[in-house]
Amino acid sequence: MNTPLTELGQQLRVDSVRAAAAAGSGHPTSSMSAADLMAVLLARQFRYDFGRPSHPGNDRFVLSKGHASPLLYAAYKAAGAIDDSELLTFRTLGSRLEGHPTPRRLPWVETATGSLGQGLPVGVGIALAGKRLDRADYRVWVLCGDSELAEGSVWEAAEHAGYEQLDNLTAIVDVNRLGQRGPTRHGHDLDAYARRFQAFGWHTVEIDGHDVDAIERAYGEAVSTAGQPTAILARTLKGKGVAAVEDREGLHGKPLPDADEAIGELGGVRDLHVEVQQPPDARTPHAASAGHLELPRWETGDEVATRDAYGKALAALGTAREDVVALDGEVSDSTRAEFFAKEHPDRFFECYIAEQQLVAAAVGLATRGRVPFASSFAAFLTRAHDFVRMAAVSGAGINLVGSHAGVAIGEDGPSQMGVEDLAMFRAVFDSTVLYPCDANQTARLVATMADLDGIRYLRTSRGGMPVLYGPDEEFPVGGSKVLRASEDDRLTVVAAGVTVHEALKAADALAADGIPVRVVDLYSVKPVDLETLREAAERTGCLLTVEDHHEQGGIGDAVLDAFLDGRPTPRLVRLAVRMMPGSATPAEQLHAAGIDAESIVAAAKLLVENAVVR
Amino acid sequence: MNTPLTELGQQLRVDSVRAAAAAGSGHPTSSMSAADLMAVLLARQFRYDFGRPSHPGNDRFVLSKGHASPLLYAAYKAAGAIDDSELLTFRTLGSRLEGHPTPRRLPWVETATGSLGQGLPVGVGIALAGKRLDRADYRVWVLCGDSELAEGSVWEAAEHAGYEQLDNLTAIVDVNRLGQRGPTRHGHDLDAYARRFQAFGWHTVEIDGHDVDAIERAYGEAVSTAGQPTAILARTLKGKGVAAVEDREGLHGKPLPDADEAIGELGGVRDLHVEVQQPPDARTPHAASAGHLELPRWETGDEVATRDAYGKALAALGTAREDVVALDGEVSDSTRAEFFAKEHPDRFFECYIAEQQLVAAAVGLATRGRVPFASSFAAFLTRAHDFVRMAAVSGAGINLVGSHAGVAIGEDGPSQMGVEDLAMFRAVFDSTVLYPCDANQTARLVATMADLDGIRYLRTSRGGMPVLYGPDEEFPVGGSKVLRASEDDRLTVVAAGVTVHEALKAADALAADGIPVRVVDLYSVKPVDLETLREAAERTGCLLTVEDHHEQGGIGDAVLDAFLDGRPTPRLVRLAVRMMPGSATPAEQLHAAGIDAESIVAAAKLLVENAVVR
Repeated sequence: MNTPLTELGQQLRVDSVRAAAAAGSGHPTSSMSAADLMAVLLARQFRYDFGRPSHPGNDRFVLSKGHASPLLYAAYKAAGAIDDSELLTFRTLGSRLEGHPTPRRLPWVETATGSLGQGLPVGVGIALAGKRLDRADYRVWVLCGDSELAEGSVWEAAEHAGYEQLDNLTAIVDVNRLGQRGPTRHGHDLDAYARRFQAFGWHTVEIDGHDVDAIERAYGEAVSTAGQPTAILARTLKGKGVAAVEDREGLHGKPLPDADEAIGELGGVRDLHVEVQQPPDARTPHAASAGHLELPRWETGDEVATRDAYGKALAALGTAREDVVALDGEVSDSTRAEFFAKEHPDRFFECYIAEQQLVAAAVGLATRGRVPFASSFAAFLTRAHDFVRMAAVSGAGINLVGSHAGVAIGEDGPSQMGVEDLAMFRAVFDSTVLYPCDANQTARLVATMADLDGIRYLRTSRGGMPVLYGPDEEFPVGGSKVLRASEDDRLTVVAAGVTVHEALKAADALAADGIPVRVVDLYSVKPVDLETLREAAERTGCLLTVEDHHEQGGIGDAVLDAFLDGRPTPRLVRLAVRMMPGSATPAEQLHAAGIDAESIVAAAKLLVENAVVR
Repeated sequence: MNTPLTELGQQLRVDSVRAAAAAGSGHPTSSMSAADLMAVLLARQFRYDFGRPSHPGNDRFVLSKGHASPLLYAAYKAAGAIDDSELLTFRTLGSRLEGHPTPRRLPWVETATGSLGQGLPVGVGIALAGKRLDRADYRVWVLCGDSELAEGSVWEAAEHAGYEQLDNLTAIVDVNRLGQRGPTRHGHDLDAYARRFQAFGWHTVEIDGHDVDAIERAYGEAVSTAGQPTAILARTLKGKGVAAVEDREGLHGKPLPDADEAIGELGGVRDLHVEVQQPPDARTPHAASAGHLELPRWETGDEVATRDAYGKALAALGTAREDVVALDGEVSDSTRAEFFAKEHPDRFFECYIAEQQLVAAAVGLATRGRVPFASSFAAFLTRAHDFVRMAAVSGAGINLVGSHAGVAIGEDGPSQMGVEDLAMFRAVFDSTVLYPCDANQTARLVATMADLDGIRYLRTSRGGMPVLYGPDEEFPVGGSKVLRASEDDRLTVVAAGVTVHEALKAADALAADGIPVRVVDLYSVKPVDLETLREAAERTGCLLTVEDHHEQGGIGDAVLDAFLDGRPTPRLVRLAVRMMPGSATPAEQLHAAGIDAESIVAAAKLLVENAVVR
């Protein structure tokens, strides 16, 4: 009965208990249920070079139930990747072994988990890379909890993987029947889960998750199943192996009450070492070197929508660079990702109306060295907020593009208007937020953002706008453009995107009335151009921000970044969307929201007349 | 062949075509596919008093495919709720007939739609109210598109409804096989959808969605099906009835190329009127009058977590008010919603780990006159961002409570830390954002927020904090508390939640060093206390904000609301979370993020030494 595999499972349990005991917190019982599943995977199926995590032939493992991190770290120890003393640093300041694993700290972690229901969607992205781009034999193994199957994102992933016939993907579901607060909806009813996965086109296997032979057979069945992803539904017991906690409620996320007794009950501390199989040879599939980039060019004065410029620039970037891929949420005719799709169909991923899966697939593709651009309406990217947040925890490098920004879209009304997106993306850790106002600027920013780190967001507009800049103008991140300036400027209008054009009209009208104003195009919303804003503040004393966005978290707040070091803050006046729009034409919308040229003129005159500005 | 029902269907098509033609935009082809489904529902099944939308016996209809608004408005016309001239105001400035329907403008709309995949989840909330609270016979009919079934939120809803056996809920799926950009994944494969719904416990019926007799039978079958919700999968043709557009790609969201010809082909304009069945008598089920509220009380100096205070206050509120309900995303032991669940199990809704459904259910319950409090970790409410956004479009009155705010949670690490939630909720239209620092304050705010309009957000903390305020202190929304003040204050520290306690420690240390500082507890983050902030600015010249949140969109930005009218802005200095935390103790986290007392002292001294402040 005590095969090496069961012994290894017991070691993983013991080490999970020890790590949590040392930390005084953590999720040992959630680790113990899946210990046998992990032991067999590590010893029998997983092909991985721990010395070379970027090996193109490596299998990929995702711990979707990220709270079972003690199990993951115990497996790393068994594989020789970390030593026992490091294992016991779990959850302490400075340790790589965080409460939930992240690739920021550990090279063997593909993606940060801990927000449930995200591992499988990211695994789908990795499997897509393997199948459609790398054409490599690596397999993607995702260890899921049963509780997290309540997340809709899991079924977006199931749909995507089933439809794409990702037979390189295996979901191992640790059905331990207990969530955080108590029993799950379906308890140990493996059939309930099997029916769901089967309906989405998956092959399923139901097993006793503590029977190592059954586990081994199930993995073999997954590997030999062609044309379908496989879900292994494993009946397990939370806290398996220790009577005081096994299959009991109220013990989620807590160290065991008596660790020493538990370790004894589990047969004591072991030091088994697993020789993990080496991956097969594989080439790095995409060209690392960039070809010559020929961005599209527009003449100043042309009327072009920035979403059109986005699509064309992305297609050109895709021609120059093999590592660039695009994804879209079934609106590529609107976001103009279709231009890329037509030129590079092999590197375009249609994600249908499933924005969480859209972002997760981008994260997965990024783990395989790709530079993904994922697009939808700006409004609908809010659907993926938690995935963007977790991508930032991962340190993933992805480009997100939100079209149909603001009330300027017109008749479709508020459900389609992105007026919170700048706030959402600015608050993401280490993000870059770009918002172009013309086609040439858009094209340049698309090329630039591809080489940045972290989460990059580009906001595009639906309607045509005149091209302001020549095709050779440069737009560094953290820069801005001063479009009107004189020695006598009474205030500075700071705008971006559609409001730049309103600001220019307003400036001309104000100049005609003897009120010169400065106009700054703040295309880089994060980071902002500190110097230009500070100079404008010093010279004019007042910044009037105008934005097609709610008044919170957008451009009006962004300009403040230039004045947070204790220096005097200029007067700040803000025009932004403060009402709930209805349907109307774009021009009517801008006027109703008080962010059109007329509104800017009125605000500027009010400030001048009341002697608020010089 | 031309029964009155087919004639009615044709009228709905003609009127959809006419409305879109008048507007010059809109989605007539998506309306035409579902016209027969709508005609039969309106004429044969729907029980509704258009003169009394709040009638407790009314059936409820949700247009989940909100872009098919022309069909909805055509139905309103057929039912006599609007006249033909209003129909033709579609999508114009000031019209009630927006591109996507919202209850802000139209009394017969239950919830705003237009972001796909939201109607069914909200419908589940309404059906839950009918089944578990109202115990009324009304039925909930949700008209879905096929494209939107790719959204995971639909499967969260399917899971919830199947598990709760909501046989008062019917999903009518208009399977017209064409999305916006092209074909859906499953085309006209009705079985593919049926398998999925069945797997989640639904009864399914597959029909030709243009066969009015089949539709009528299917509705009858849905009504007579007990113990299961029903999904009617209807094979339809987009643009049905007009050869130029029928079943053709590339015609989504566009008026018909030749409206007059199309109207002729559809048999011309009709003026059929439908006598919609009146609802049965029903009582308004919950008591309108509030009982006596006895909030929990704590002694100053006690160590209490605000999440505990939340749970206890909510339970007390539930005792006083029958209309208060609570929902949680399988973490009620952490959010402390469990206190309510134990005392009022009949009014507690376990939504498992499905935050989109959690918020949608709250919106649905709110449509039936309830005051919902929905809770999860603050970090995980980002999962429901799009639902919160759409709830604001609806004008829904819901309370959302995010626990485990900030890095102060400690060891669990960044995946569990809400550090973007203030930015997200501040940017929601017409929202209220509250962030208490002690137990008595929390309890008062819970009672207050129940009576507000719109989206109300309460941010709670994991760890115990000393009670600062007596149980009879009042905390108006838009207020603040000045906790330290003197004539000689050199600057003002503005804090909320956990940082209030750090600010007090810092103020005491600074005072001992001869640097008096003012401390403001900004428990109302939106709206902020304009007067107190302005006075603090005038008296001290500098606001030093300290928050357990990313630097964007939180308290540092919120204080600016007091200085946007052109008045001089004080110097603003900001302490906030600017790094990616790892695992560490709560105290270590606050220190590493630079938001603990020591960091505040250091920042204040730096400002004083550099003579930045007076």
